[in-house]
Amino acid sequence: MVEEKYLITGFSGFVSRYFCDYLEKNKINALIKGIDAKDCALRFDDFKHVRVNFEKMDLLSFDSIERVLAEFKPDYILHLASYSSVALSWKTPVQSFQNNTNIFLNLVEALRKLNMKNTRLLSVGSSEEYGDVTDGDLPLREDHKINPISPYAVARVSQEYLSRVYADGYGINIIMTRSFNHIGPGQKSIFVISSLARQLVELKKAGGNGGKIVAGDVSIVRDFTDVRDVVHAYYLLLKNGKKGQIYNVCSGRGVSLKDVIAIMAAQLNINVDIHIDDELIRPSDNKIIIGSNEKIKKEIGWNNSIPLEQSLSDILSYWESEVTH
Amino acid sequence: MVEEKYLITGFSGFVSRYFCDYLEKNKINALIKGIDAKDCALRFDDFKHVRVNFEKMDLLSFDSIERVLAEFKPDYILHLASYSSVALSWKTPVQSFQNNTNIFLNLVEALRKLNMKNTRLLSVGSSEEYGDVTDGDLPLREDHKINPISPYAVARVSQEYLSRVYADGYGINIIMTRSFNHIGPGQKSIFVISSLARQLVELKKAGGNGGKIVAGDVSIVRDFTDVRDVVHAYYLLLKNGKKGQIYNVCSGRGVSLKDVIAIMAAQLNINVDIHIDDELIRPSDNKIIIGSNEKIKKEIGWNNSIPLEQSLSDILSYWESEVTH
Repeated sequence: MVEEKYLITGFSGFVSRYFCDYLEKNKINALIKGIDAKDCALRFDDFKHVRVNFEKMDLLSFDSIERVLAEFKPDYILHLASYSSVALSWKTPVQSFQNNTNIFLNLVEALRKLNMKNTRLLSVGSSEEYGDVTDGDLPLREDHKINPISPYAVARVSQEYLSRVYADGYGINIIMTRSFNHIGPGQKSIFVISSLARQLVELKKAGGNGGKIVAGDVSIVRDFTDVRDVVHAYYLLLKNGKKGQIYNVCSGRGVSLKDVIAIMAAQLNINVDIHIDDELIRPSDNKIIIGSNEKIKKEIGWNNSIPLEQSLSDILSYWESEVTH
Repeated sequence: MVEEKYLITGFSGFVSRYFCDYLEKNKINALIKGIDAKDCALRFDDFKHVRVNFEKMDLLSFDSIERVLAEFKPDYILHLASYSSVALSWKTPVQSFQNNTNIFLNLVEALRKLNMKNTRLLSVGSSEEYGDVTDGDLPLREDHKINPISPYAVARVSQEYLSRVYADGYGINIIMTRSFNHIGPGQKSIFVISSLARQLVELKKAGGNGGKIVAGDVSIVRDFTDVRDVVHAYYLLLKNGKKGQIYNVCSGRGVSLKDVIAIMAAQLNINVDIHIDDELIRPSDNKIIIGSNEKIKKEIGWNNSIPLEQSLSDILSYWESEVTH
């Protein structure tokens, strides 16, 4: 039995669980080492094909990262560790930068020092890198100008440029994404869809036929992909992505937050008043972001398969089991 | 007497001395606080208009930077601190990144936390940010696509994007440069012109009518500006630059290293054989870089006044007094 070795950073976050599930469902024999600065509550006792091992560590410590790479010798690295909230990055820009860019720099530098050129690393970036765009720019293709306008976006752009230098200059085997918003059951409620879903479920559980929820600018349009489609893309990119290349991971469809709220309210059969909280409106924000997924479809054969309505329904079910009144 | 207060980071480096000289020569009453991680050997005892005070400190310590800003309350900050060698950045990319980008992040974050929006900060960037360019792109204008291809260039681009976010998102008063190669007496011989000048002076002093010098790719073309013109630009930008704007600082003229060597050899009246050392050729390097200085000329009224031949002659004189055989 050939067993593939995956190192997953940011293992205690939202996406790693779904990546492990993907491998298990597809009967891929894998040994996974998860690392994260936070504790990990995930359990994988019922898995048959995938073995998982977790270690808590400070990813800002170069020595720790280097030791893990030298000991584990991964075939693949899925780099999910990130300070991934745009909103919070405005409040703590230094932490955002260090926990995106400096962590990533430690990782690629350790690969370079250990001369691990066969290990394939997926550097997860963000649609936020495109920054302020106009309707004529849409859908955003990978060759579109980047223009980061938040601390989070700057950190991601820095990571991407470091990726290019380490791939082209040092020969490290790095594939990059610009991942658009992803959503799914279990995502923390600091992220917008999860926050809205939670509020709607709370309204529903409070009885009556609806009420008020609090939101920022609900006219903004985003391109949402289900996390289960996202991890499928990450797997395919680790396997077949071209070294030094960037791939959008997105649905190609834009939906406003207002429409997302309407879909979920209809699914819950409630009426909703949206209260705009200026505190939730960011200093600089993009109005519309929609990506092109042509490149990843054509070159890698990925396709998103879960419709938005299904994702939203699953997210509501998640919050229905979490929220108790 | 109104006294302007300048904080200068990277005070022990090559440029700060010339900036102080500029203020003194122009009879600008100024109090300067220089900070650097390294000791500073500069003396200013004969100055009449400019008072200088130096403090050695770790610029990677946020607390130290914050304390200095709170105590000194500068009107202007000239941010020269940098790990500025492209060649060395390939050998120690992490140090290059931290000592460019992370130091800068500390500085702007301290300004933000202290709400110092009247302090004007000049963020010195680099022509290396433009990266790989073709003849048709020349001379490079500020709106040209950036494309960093060395660890140093990535660090500078990250700094520039951070500048934009802190200026546009937080209202910090930042003006940015993309400074092309600058040269002058006193520059360390890890930089190419200084290294070549030193070797030529050593040849001259060894007697005979010339000999062999060691260089990397001498066909590369760069845009050199005398450091005395550069500090003039920095002063004008601190005074009159527009917040959030980027300005090339360059001569607009390109010269190959081969031609630079020929000019200096003629000035010394020696013959030179150039020995190419492959070790000195970098993994990725730009062949030709020439900038456009239209923007800074038009908007700020700067002009470079010292011809290349004069700069080279002064650099040779410097090494003639330094090199002893």
